[in-house]
Amino acid sequence: MLVSALLTSVGINSGLCVLFFTLYSILRKQPTNYGVYIPRLIAEGSSKRRSHFNLERLIPSPGWVKRAWKLSEEDLLSTSGLDAVVFMRVITFSLRVFLFAGVIGIFVLLPVNCSGDQLHDIDFADLSNNSLDVFTISNLSSGSKRLWAHFSAVYLVTAFVCYLLYYEYKCITGKRIDFFHLTKPQPHQFTILVRSIPVSAGSSVSESVERFFMEYHPSTYLSHMVVHRSSKLQSLIKDAKKLYKRITHLQSEPNQPQYRHVGLFRHSVDLVDHYGKKLEDIEENMRLERSEVSLATQEVRAAFVSFKSRYGAAVAFHMKQSINPTEWVTELAPEPNDVYWPFFSSSFMRRWLSKIVVIVACILLTILFLIPVLVVQGLTNLNQLEIWFPSLKSILTITFVSQVITGYLPSLILQLFLKIVPPIMEFLSSIQGYICHSDIEKSACNKVLWFTIWNIFFATVFSGSVLYQVSIFLDPKHIPAKLASAVPAQASFFIAYVVTSGWTSTSSELFRIIPLIWSLIRKPFTCCSDEEFEVPSIPYHRDIPRILFFGLLGITYFFLAPLILPFLLVYLCLAYIIYRNQFLNVYAPKYETAGKFWPIVHNSMIFSLVLMQAIAIGLFTLKKLPLASTLIFPLPVLTLLFNEYCRKRFLPNFIAYPAEVLIKRDREDRYDPKMAEFYDNLVAAYQDPALLPIQFSANSDSLNSPLISAAQVRH
Amino acid sequence: MLVSALLTSVGINSGLCVLFFTLYSILRKQPTNYGVYIPRLIAEGSSKRRSHFNLERLIPSPGWVKRAWKLSEEDLLSTSGLDAVVFMRVITFSLRVFLFAGVIGIFVLLPVNCSGDQLHDIDFADLSNNSLDVFTISNLSSGSKRLWAHFSAVYLVTAFVCYLLYYEYKCITGKRIDFFHLTKPQPHQFTILVRSIPVSAGSSVSESVERFFMEYHPSTYLSHMVVHRSSKLQSLIKDAKKLYKRITHLQSEPNQPQYRHVGLFRHSVDLVDHYGKKLEDIEENMRLERSEVSLATQEVRAAFVSFKSRYGAAVAFHMKQSINPTEWVTELAPEPNDVYWPFFSSSFMRRWLSKIVVIVACILLTILFLIPVLVVQGLTNLNQLEIWFPSLKSILTITFVSQVITGYLPSLILQLFLKIVPPIMEFLSSIQGYICHSDIEKSACNKVLWFTIWNIFFATVFSGSVLYQVSIFLDPKHIPAKLASAVPAQASFFIAYVVTSGWTSTSSELFRIIPLIWSLIRKPFTCCSDEEFEVPSIPYHRDIPRILFFGLLGITYFFLAPLILPFLLVYLCLAYIIYRNQFLNVYAPKYETAGKFWPIVHNSMIFSLVLMQAIAIGLFTLKKLPLASTLIFPLPVLTLLFNEYCRKRFLPNFIAYPAEVLIKRDREDRYDPKMAEFYDNLVAAYQDPALLPIQFSANSDSLNSPLISAAQVRH
Repeated sequence: MLVSALLTSVGINSGLCVLFFTLYSILRKQPTNYGVYIPRLIAEGSSKRRSHFNLERLIPSPGWVKRAWKLSEEDLLSTSGLDAVVFMRVITFSLRVFLFAGVIGIFVLLPVNCSGDQLHDIDFADLSNNSLDVFTISNLSSGSKRLWAHFSAVYLVTAFVCYLLYYEYKCITGKRIDFFHLTKPQPHQFTILVRSIPVSAGSSVSESVERFFMEYHPSTYLSHMVVHRSSKLQSLIKDAKKLYKRITHLQSEPNQPQYRHVGLFRHSVDLVDHYGKKLEDIEENMRLERSEVSLATQEVRAAFVSFKSRYGAAVAFHMKQSINPTEWVTELAPEPNDVYWPFFSSSFMRRWLSKIVVIVACILLTILFLIPVLVVQGLTNLNQLEIWFPSLKSILTITFVSQVITGYLPSLILQLFLKIVPPIMEFLSSIQGYICHSDIEKSACNKVLWFTIWNIFFATVFSGSVLYQVSIFLDPKHIPAKLASAVPAQASFFIAYVVTSGWTSTSSELFRIIPLIWSLIRKPFTCCSDEEFEVPSIPYHRDIPRILFFGLLGITYFFLAPLILPFLLVYLCLAYIIYRNQFLNVYAPKYETAGKFWPIVHNSMIFSLVLMQAIAIGLFTLKKLPLASTLIFPLPVLTLLFNEYCRKRFLPNFIAYPAEVLIKRDREDRYDPKMAEFYDNLVAAYQDPALLPIQFSANSDSLNSPLISAAQVRH
Repeated sequence: MLVSALLTSVGINSGLCVLFFTLYSILRKQPTNYGVYIPRLIAEGSSKRRSHFNLERLIPSPGWVKRAWKLSEEDLLSTSGLDAVVFMRVITFSLRVFLFAGVIGIFVLLPVNCSGDQLHDIDFADLSNNSLDVFTISNLSSGSKRLWAHFSAVYLVTAFVCYLLYYEYKCITGKRIDFFHLTKPQPHQFTILVRSIPVSAGSSVSESVERFFMEYHPSTYLSHMVVHRSSKLQSLIKDAKKLYKRITHLQSEPNQPQYRHVGLFRHSVDLVDHYGKKLEDIEENMRLERSEVSLATQEVRAAFVSFKSRYGAAVAFHMKQSINPTEWVTELAPEPNDVYWPFFSSSFMRRWLSKIVVIVACILLTILFLIPVLVVQGLTNLNQLEIWFPSLKSILTITFVSQVITGYLPSLILQLFLKIVPPIMEFLSSIQGYICHSDIEKSACNKVLWFTIWNIFFATVFSGSVLYQVSIFLDPKHIPAKLASAVPAQASFFIAYVVTSGWTSTSSELFRIIPLIWSLIRKPFTCCSDEEFEVPSIPYHRDIPRILFFGLLGITYFFLAPLILPFLLVYLCLAYIIYRNQFLNVYAPKYETAGKFWPIVHNSMIFSLVLMQAIAIGLFTLKKLPLASTLIFPLPVLTLLFNEYCRKRFLPNFIAYPAEVLIKRDREDRYDPKMAEFYDNLVAAYQDPALLPIQFSANSDSLNSPLISAAQVRH
């Protein structure tokens, strides 16, 4: 790829970014778009819909940038929780790393690369006609002494990243403990989930739980809530809600046709009456189903068991309870609103089978996804495209077209395909057996991350079939050599990828294209969307892997093609401002893991470092500098030892809180008069929402009983 | 190797076994050998040294076989503990497996193999001149339908072994729990070892421990015992003991010279006086050292912390105590007499360094050990030997010599070299940082096992350099194919190995050659060995890996060369009788792990199965039966899944007892009047023996104070 092609790509994307920013500045001020751009403020009531028109609304203004910039970490913590703070720290962490690497890369490595003469001399008169490869390490000849600059850079950056990783892990651990001390008593701190409860003949699950915990934890046991098989009830409630919404919609708009022709004889039917009857039927079913679900026969062998103290719950969680370790399996309870109820309905065997299905599905997805990747690779090599489609030859000779195709189109296509991966992975995780939304997103985050690394990085680098890729990893001796020959060749593709995928993804995150289009489509059909208005939560499993993947690209390419770093820094700066703005205006936290996403970030960074070091080993061997490649060898070993130390030093705190912290917190609460009320609420905190009295809409307070509601609607 | 060579080997070894048995039957009745053959009975006082002579003593009698056979598992449990029971179950487990495999192998696979014609037709007229290969799977031609018999055998035996493994694991878990319920309260059940204790300036380790546990475990904490740096004191005590022994020896034998010429002027010195003075000096040093060691400055940052209940100790062990997980690290305490005190003297850094040293040493040992293995391999190929030593050609043509050399010598040499491995591995484990003898032996057991598998099995199969072996495992795709071509070729070597190494090792275990020789050498120099008499304990790290290695050979070769099975069964029957006899007469338990060796056995069996299946996959591919090799594929997956299930189902009980068991046991003790006394003893149970008042000899009750003892000796 020529410099000019890269510049075209940069130009297009800069233009797009400016356009998105300007449009955002205007559109966010239109009251009709408040639901898209400031849902959080609306929900909190801090911003009212103004309907009077003024000219200011049409002029783009950068005030939101200032507000986002000024947001302090304490404010973010108090409004969006620790997870948002950790998310922002991922960005600042990457910024620090690539500022350091950028200084080394641009001021040391780039001049060194340009001074090489392996490819051809640099043409300073017409910079844009140089190939991008001139700026990469490929331009240095074999055995060149200048490669020692790269060698030093690898050591320096590894040391810096490890130092920062240690510092961040320590800092986030501290924040996690502080957060625990500052939060009010939460039900999930006092509760564990017990599964595989053995039930003797003639007794119910509930009795079994009561007996066991009264026997072995008499001093700390408080209460329990057995989980019931409620999937049928859940779907009934869903249907009823849908019907109810339709009825209220019909009633609120008297000018809409209230009749419909039904059946063969086309006799007219009062729609409100018709739906009302249907709703009554469903409610009848619901009542029957509810009374059935409450029976002991519909009990799942799982229960939320609450304790009088956090320490009591932790002891029950940490100890193996039963002689048979596959019975009375304990795990920490999630927050009550974080529980993923559908999961509990499935049996052990079904959960086990779905786990296998998920694994197979992930493999299939990976294989199918290689098709678009290969197409994209075809686009970067114009010659190959001309061979595939000879008829396009005339168009492809136009410079601008060819530059758009090689510089922009490939990563755009990839990006579009990548958009569908996070929802798919979230779905796969949801059927894998996790008990709460946060665990599902954490697992999906990992899946998306490794999918991205495998399908974008390795599939692009080792362009070839899946079997070829697998065969490379089955031959571990030659991995560094193969990486070293393949990775630098894709430098220009990944530089363009950062510009197109990175820049565009952040600005479209700001602009919220899909919610915007969705709201525009939906508007004509809904009268008053206020009632069903829901504040979105940030999809960590989509955004964290993206930032981490750019981190991987930056770390692996910083010494091969330092030109990638300025573009990465621009991306990270954009992300820094935009995500802060989104946390302020758009996203509200759905759950709180208190920073449990950080270990994923840490592991990904360690993987990036080791991958970079493997490439360095292979590269120095290729470039005939055996001493350098030997001297790099201790580096991956040290990095992995460092990782091992961090696992020992920090990870346990991310799995469960230590005794010291729990006991201190319990003592603080001991004389709190509010605790009695808290214990009362704790007993019912983990009630399945399907078994609670239904309230069809947030505003209709009178409709607590479904039967009454349907009757009211009909008559 | 020809059948006749194998028969020679069998002949020699049968002869040796009969000789050993006969000699044992006679020698064990001689009073002078009681210390070698029935030390346990002597120590228990159930057998007195009879000095009157009778003729019966010179006639071999098989009474001991009957006694060993009759020994029930309950008796074994009560006299030698659960570890001995588990050890015997390893043998009976192997017996069951190979009886089943033997029936299939001898009655189905062996006739099938003989019916092949790949090599040459079997010569029924002169059986002993057939090559052993005729009886192996190599005799079947490629694509032969008869290979399906082997296929079915692989599936059948895998299923049978897995069933037995599950049954045994379950049974031993049950025994472990029962054993826990039946034993009296033991100090180690109430105690944990805490390490990496943080100490604030101006306070001692002891104060720090007291403060921490009084704060966080006030209701269960009982007492603690800080570990002191006592290595210097330990060596002083050792010196003093040696001197004291010499003095008592001199005093008890008045006819020995009591004077010695000392120094340049050769003036005579009263030896008793001389040693007495020396002893006094050492005792003075000891007193100084002891008062110094007791100081807070000599405290190691580790302490044994005792609790009022087993459950309290278990809770403190399972929970992470501190915000910094590298501080207040807890582990279960070993039995007081099982503690390995020298270890505590070393700092964290030194322990870490010695761990690395141990790893390097293991690698070096593996490389050095390949030399004898390669020599042995040279011996099995006579042709190669003739090339190396042309002068030997004339001797090697003698049939008997060549048969001894190919059939017997190789494994004898290997066995001699293998003898030195267990002590080396035990030494390596002891400097690796384990806190008790049982952990050291367990770790050594693992080391010896993998060393044997690597250095005997793989080194023999892939005869070649270490680098070649490593390169095979770096190329995982081709492992089955390489195994399939190499493993059957070594069948005759391993059959001979079972006969020589297996048979001889068990009969020499019975005969106790080395202790016998040692006692014969020592006899003239010691007057009354009764006083220093010590009952040996069985070296599990030597004997368990040996049995497991024969298990591996049996499982991998049963379908390749079924001829190995009868020899294995003979070996196991011998082992069954002999080890039972040794438990009765020779070995006394030194510690009790309550069956913690079983997981090692389980893992080794699973490894053997997967290795066998990999060989089967490769072999069926080699023999052009692709359908069979595809159908074997699910088998290793299922085996590993089974192993995973067993890890979940049984392993936790081998790491720590579950809450249920602990609480039940605690409740049983609650009203036991003896518990007050037990708690009193518990406080001092983990006192460093070096800090206790010294008692030089078991019999000299009056010598409690070392100073008095020395003074008594002198005057």
